[in-house]
Amino acid sequence: MPLVCEIISVGTELLLGSITNTDARDISQGLAEAGIHCYYHTTVGDNPSRLREALRIARERADIIITTGGLGPTCDDLTKQTVCEAFGVPLELHEGTWSRILSFFERIGKPVTENNRRQAMTPVDGVVFENDWGTAPGCGFRVEGIWVFMLPGPPKECRPMFQNCLLPLLKSLSGTTIVSRNVRVFGMGESEVEDRLRSLMERSINPSVAPYAKEGEVTLRVTASAQSEEEALRVIQPVIGEVRALLGDLVYGVDVDSLESVVLDLLERANVRLAVAESCTGGMVAAKLTGVPGASKRFMGGVVAYAREVKVNVLKVPDELIDKYGMVSEEVAAAMARGVCDVTGAELGLGLTGLAGPGSDGSSVPVGTVCVALYDARNGTRQTLRRNFGDERGRVRTMASLTALDMVRRRLSG
Amino acid sequence: MPLVCEIISVGTELLLGSITNTDARDISQGLAEAGIHCYYHTTVGDNPSRLREALRIARERADIIITTGGLGPTCDDLTKQTVCEAFGVPLELHEGTWSRILSFFERIGKPVTENNRRQAMTPVDGVVFENDWGTAPGCGFRVEGIWVFMLPGPPKECRPMFQNCLLPLLKSLSGTTIVSRNVRVFGMGESEVEDRLRSLMERSINPSVAPYAKEGEVTLRVTASAQSEEEALRVIQPVIGEVRALLGDLVYGVDVDSLESVVLDLLERANVRLAVAESCTGGMVAAKLTGVPGASKRFMGGVVAYAREVKVNVLKVPDELIDKYGMVSEEVAAAMARGVCDVTGAELGLGLTGLAGPGSDGSSVPVGTVCVALYDARNGTRQTLRRNFGDERGRVRTMASLTALDMVRRRLSG
Repeated sequence: MPLVCEIISVGTELLLGSITNTDARDISQGLAEAGIHCYYHTTVGDNPSRLREALRIARERADIIITTGGLGPTCDDLTKQTVCEAFGVPLELHEGTWSRILSFFERIGKPVTENNRRQAMTPVDGVVFENDWGTAPGCGFRVEGIWVFMLPGPPKECRPMFQNCLLPLLKSLSGTTIVSRNVRVFGMGESEVEDRLRSLMERSINPSVAPYAKEGEVTLRVTASAQSEEEALRVIQPVIGEVRALLGDLVYGVDVDSLESVVLDLLERANVRLAVAESCTGGMVAAKLTGVPGASKRFMGGVVAYAREVKVNVLKVPDELIDKYGMVSEEVAAAMARGVCDVTGAELGLGLTGLAGPGSDGSSVPVGTVCVALYDARNGTRQTLRRNFGDERGRVRTMASLTALDMVRRRLSG
Repeated sequence: MPLVCEIISVGTELLLGSITNTDARDISQGLAEAGIHCYYHTTVGDNPSRLREALRIARERADIIITTGGLGPTCDDLTKQTVCEAFGVPLELHEGTWSRILSFFERIGKPVTENNRRQAMTPVDGVVFENDWGTAPGCGFRVEGIWVFMLPGPPKECRPMFQNCLLPLLKSLSGTTIVSRNVRVFGMGESEVEDRLRSLMERSINPSVAPYAKEGEVTLRVTASAQSEEEALRVIQPVIGEVRALLGDLVYGVDVDSLESVVLDLLERANVRLAVAESCTGGMVAAKLTGVPGASKRFMGGVVAYAREVKVNVLKVPDELIDKYGMVSEEVAAAMARGVCDVTGAELGLGLTGLAGPGSDGSSVPVGTVCVALYDARNGTRQTLRRNFGDERGRVRTMASLTALDMVRRRLSG
């Protein structure tokens, strides 16, 4: 009999529709991976009596209850007290957590409040998940054959704590090993990827192949259930080979962190440094690259050339070139890429110019048009491309950033 | 007594974490607007017996039940049959819907199946919501004092049908108007804000005051319920005044989009242009500013000076200054801010340098240290600050970006 889990999300802001319940989604994905069934999600507000009611119902139909939210220091954060009372489990001060909180506040130079001390209280004889991503620790206990776990609500804290602390524990409770490998794809939409893989997906049961779309890219999750991790990985391997055969160089990595981390690895291997000159993306490419720890080894920085003066004065893009081809042109992108190599001394330079919208700039260039160029200062060669990413500003900027990074990847892995 | 609604989302893909439950969020926003309380969201799979169980629980505690999902033509879409059986409401063929479906299939040139005919069955004596966004109509009925409504699951169908068909009906059932205003706060953590507002929050019932923390900032939502929008706004106004009195210039706006949009408005009003020189944030400040449509009017761009060479060669930060004070110093931040004004011609320049971690850079500077400087090229004045934002790379970068933007806001709002 597989274990059954119920997720209870606590937070009035969820019931008001102020935020989306991404925690329930993230945890559900992990439960599926661990071979644990999930039959219900329940959301309640910051209200002890309704949380008690949800717990009463859940304990009748689940082996594992996971709550999210309501562990913060403010007075409407009542999950821990309510859950522990409902199950008759006392709380005690967890010294390790308390000293972490104290040193956190000392470091940031702010006073500790009585509420923060409440965060350091955890269930007697329970488990504690240190919070490396915020102040509220997660915790859990087992009572009357039911496991209860409490995770913080903010997705930046909930997701890593679930992945790093709770999921391994759940996998050991479940006894089945479910292993997933993620094949990362850029350059093709989800429905087109699905069309191309349809036959493979339909005949793949163990391992299964499922697509997930996120911010302009697609992840194919290949999942196998087996007695051991080695066995699972053994059956996954040939399926990943099939995916690669069907998608070719659209696949930018397997189990990698991000396109930008792949690009930084390739730069390291090729022993070259990159700089970027951005107009429509306004710093997003640089921000993505510098989000990766250690980026400074291969990424030098660059110029955000949002105003025409910056393109002309800092990047030395000739005024006549802009007048002749227009601000959004492959020629200007190439001049920006070359300019950023000249001013920084980098071997590779990216240039991006485009019209993210929502409004037109008065020229004949359609909203959503983006031009990207890659310049190689070692031999003076360049390549350019022009695309249209539609009329939603955020999407245009994201797709432009990813397309530029992918251009570097293709060049270096070519 | 306000009406109480419960949302039941139907779909195995929600329980597997394959999709996020945005329908529940969208409907909840509308319920809040209509003055209808929502105490629970429940999610169940495509499973009639568990849906029956969820309905049994919901009808004991709600005046209105709204389901989403399970109205499509595939055989696992069982919501309508299960709900109508549970409430003893028979189904009949709805001629209008049936002829719409027939003409839809004629238009796309595909054969109509028996499953499609099932989509045209609706509750006897109920309401029908035509689906202008797909094939499955929504529907509803009233039985034993409980209203039950069923909406399709795909957000592209659910959201417009809810907004255009169901929400007006709910507003007429409720007769109350609820209005919220959001006070945005930067520069103080959630628990400290709450400590300072405790007495106000405890005595505020209508309007109520509730804090929400998100990415380094806090939003205080002030919500009132009244007979009319004007009446609600009238009772909210003095409470916002009290919040402002308690928090002073930590409040950066009411019902504004973001800190960066406030900064851009202030730049516009002051008729000055901004440029940024970023090291540790690597383009994040620029990316935030350029995320706002129309940013180009006042934001010129800047330099991502990640490598030392870029600081020295592009921003003209003297080598000796770096050697004397260290890369992470208020002096270097100020030189960067001045440098970016010089190269771009902007009146105001921001400079950011810091150590985002996770590792140390080998110097004596603690991980998480950030120095920010604001330079005014019109009179050659500068201000600088030094902070530590802890040891989580993402948080250090986000807090550094917001702190820099807030420095500009404080300068321009006097």
